[in-house]
Amino acid sequence: MKPHGPIPPGFRADPDGMLLIGGDRADALADMAGDTPLFVYDSAMLTTRVAEWRAAMPTEVQLHYAMKANPYPPLLAFMAQLVDGFDVASGGELKAALASGMPAGDISFAGPGKRDRELEATITAGSTLNLESAGEADRALSIAGHLGLTPSLAVRVNPDFDLKGSGMKMGGGAKPFGVDAADVPSLVRRLLDAGADWQGFHIFAGSQALDAAAIAETQAQTVALAAQLANKIGATPPLVNLGGGMGVPYFPGDKPVDAAAVGNALAATLATRDPILADSRFAMELGRWLVAEAGVYLTRIVNRKTSHGETFLVTDGGLHHQLAASGNFGTVIRRNYPIAVAGRFGVDAEETVSVVGCLCTPLDRLGDQVALPRSDVGELIALFLAGAYGASASPATFLGQGAAREILV
Amino acid sequence: MKPHGPIPPGFRADPDGMLLIGGDRADALADMAGDTPLFVYDSAMLTTRVAEWRAAMPTEVQLHYAMKANPYPPLLAFMAQLVDGFDVASGGELKAALASGMPAGDISFAGPGKRDRELEATITAGSTLNLESAGEADRALSIAGHLGLTPSLAVRVNPDFDLKGSGMKMGGGAKPFGVDAADVPSLVRRLLDAGADWQGFHIFAGSQALDAAAIAETQAQTVALAAQLANKIGATPPLVNLGGGMGVPYFPGDKPVDAAAVGNALAATLATRDPILADSRFAMELGRWLVAEAGVYLTRIVNRKTSHGETFLVTDGGLHHQLAASGNFGTVIRRNYPIAVAGRFGVDAEETVSVVGCLCTPLDRLGDQVALPRSDVGELIALFLAGAYGASASPATFLGQGAAREILV
Repeated sequence: MKPHGPIPPGFRADPDGMLLIGGDRADALADMAGDTPLFVYDSAMLTTRVAEWRAAMPTEVQLHYAMKANPYPPLLAFMAQLVDGFDVASGGELKAALASGMPAGDISFAGPGKRDRELEATITAGSTLNLESAGEADRALSIAGHLGLTPSLAVRVNPDFDLKGSGMKMGGGAKPFGVDAADVPSLVRRLLDAGADWQGFHIFAGSQALDAAAIAETQAQTVALAAQLANKIGATPPLVNLGGGMGVPYFPGDKPVDAAAVGNALAATLATRDPILADSRFAMELGRWLVAEAGVYLTRIVNRKTSHGETFLVTDGGLHHQLAASGNFGTVIRRNYPIAVAGRFGVDAEETVSVVGCLCTPLDRLGDQVALPRSDVGELIALFLAGAYGASASPATFLGQGAAREILV
Repeated sequence: MKPHGPIPPGFRADPDGMLLIGGDRADALADMAGDTPLFVYDSAMLTTRVAEWRAAMPTEVQLHYAMKANPYPPLLAFMAQLVDGFDVASGGELKAALASGMPAGDISFAGPGKRDRELEATITAGSTLNLESAGEADRALSIAGHLGLTPSLAVRVNPDFDLKGSGMKMGGGAKPFGVDAADVPSLVRRLLDAGADWQGFHIFAGSQALDAAAIAETQAQTVALAAQLANKIGATPPLVNLGGGMGVPYFPGDKPVDAAAVGNALAATLATRDPILADSRFAMELGRWLVAEAGVYLTRIVNRKTSHGETFLVTDGGLHHQLAASGNFGTVIRRNYPIAVAGRFGVDAEETVSVVGCLCTPLDRLGDQVALPRSDVGELIALFLAGAYGASASPATFLGQGAAREILV
């Protein structure tokens, strides 16, 4: 038996033992959707999560949603009502963000390989470009000139530090992202000289960290770096995007981030900030932390079989929808995401099984030797933390399968 | 500097130094397709590859194409003319295989999680089901009974051995695939008693091996296992699908499989086979080996930038089309696929650069510190071995990007 990660708090069963998501039975949701596999996103959990963040953070800090985590249109439209801005990473995401109802002025675009047509669409919409290089700045200024528009431009800074303990390091050394801190002041002066509407800095040192102290330390470094750059430039950045960093507990032993501790530390950091940042606004940009726990992936058992004494539950889902949960996306050692039998939620484990997908590859494993209550063909398996980097970050067409259904409840 | 894998033989440049694919210039192909990124598949290389296989193998062995490697419809239609059968892994692939012109009777379906509707579609079409469990056999027989049809059924065997040195082990121990060898005879007798049209065995011990001796040894074990099972059953399997196993050299130091050595060994194995297999047909099922080298992924440089002294070429492509090449699919240690500057093909390296994709994640790296001729914004990067497990095995919608173009030339 191998352990699985902790099931997010807030999930419970009805008297029959059926998992409830947003108050609805998992089996009823699958029926409503018309087929499995199925991603269900609980809007009430999104609301609660945003409220939790706002309660923890200083009121002067804005909340941006990094829509790469989950771009499902109904979820985007819901998030547009809850947060202060969207961060997008492509022209496709920009279009979806604009369609969600989020005002164009509250959308910013970061990405190391923006094409001319993406720069043009962003400038035309009136959204902000987070510039990743001097070359990109040249292209943006030139396009804005041709359009006769004043572009909203921020500079993404490649900081000289990274976020300790982060699953994904975005700073500290040579990176394709952002402008090396040393080169930022001259670039910003060029933007100001060119008459651009300079929006400030985007500084993203890492993501998926669980240690509040490490996040707080990185935020303090980020604010200090912003002040240092602003003093060199001689101008106050209108906005300092502090990046994200707050992760979620996927695996055995993982503990949730102490959001209150992050907020208290950030309040102290901001209270003592350099005077040049006195009138700056601040934002955090979160994706996974906001939406991961609100999502559940439901997949039906198609076959129950035994091979050499091991039991396999073969489902109609798999890595084509849940690449990261299968251990094949950015992880070195495969570990189990939280998993349950939807119809026996909270029931004690009775057997050790491996839950696999329907793909004809040994990589397609959703639960490796996990302890679960007994289940059989036709029953639903629930995989948790499916709200972020699931449906949109998996190879849906692999082996001719196709996308899973998605619903927001 | 880090090495990259060997560029497949047969690629050359025109007098300007531009890579030719199927006789066409890479830049002209990108123009013809209308945009980059772009997968180009060279039909002449497919023809050559199949001819190479047929020259190496005993004439009594049939060639099946495992279409999961590349399901691009024009490529499928082309392969349907070259090979003796298609192996599919889902109802979606079955539909595409039938549309390609391959006769239904030459299509077989293997996959551990077949749904009832997939079993029904296969039986209705008259294609063969490779059964993966006794439970699946029950469902197939029941569905065939309801349809009033005689189902074509083979049994996929989980062998007690694996393919040594294979990148993907499909046998040897507890597996979700196939029926444990010990349970096969009784299952086949049940199929025969039920009046099914028993097609034989499907025995797939592993894939992506480069050592001819290991492949030959596995094939000998496979034929011996088929004979042993046939003798226990007391019937000759009409077809023994020997699986695949022949891989391609992706990485530095990899050498191509010696196909002639595999063929010679297989001829010797078949010449001395047990009399119960005298009238059996044999097939090999290949995907990657047939199509990988015929494909090139072309992506355009959007930005050339320096960070902390390292040079990055940021392209308009990335892991959303080339997940495996980025090192994020089934690999533990990231190594470089073969890569070149399309417009300076064969030119000596002049600099060390990292070629990255346009996604906002450090995972999106197509070439890590590779030595290349100097190149700049607007030029094309060619990533080789892109004909298998590229377009269909990558998360195309990630970060709002979308699928790459594909063409067969």
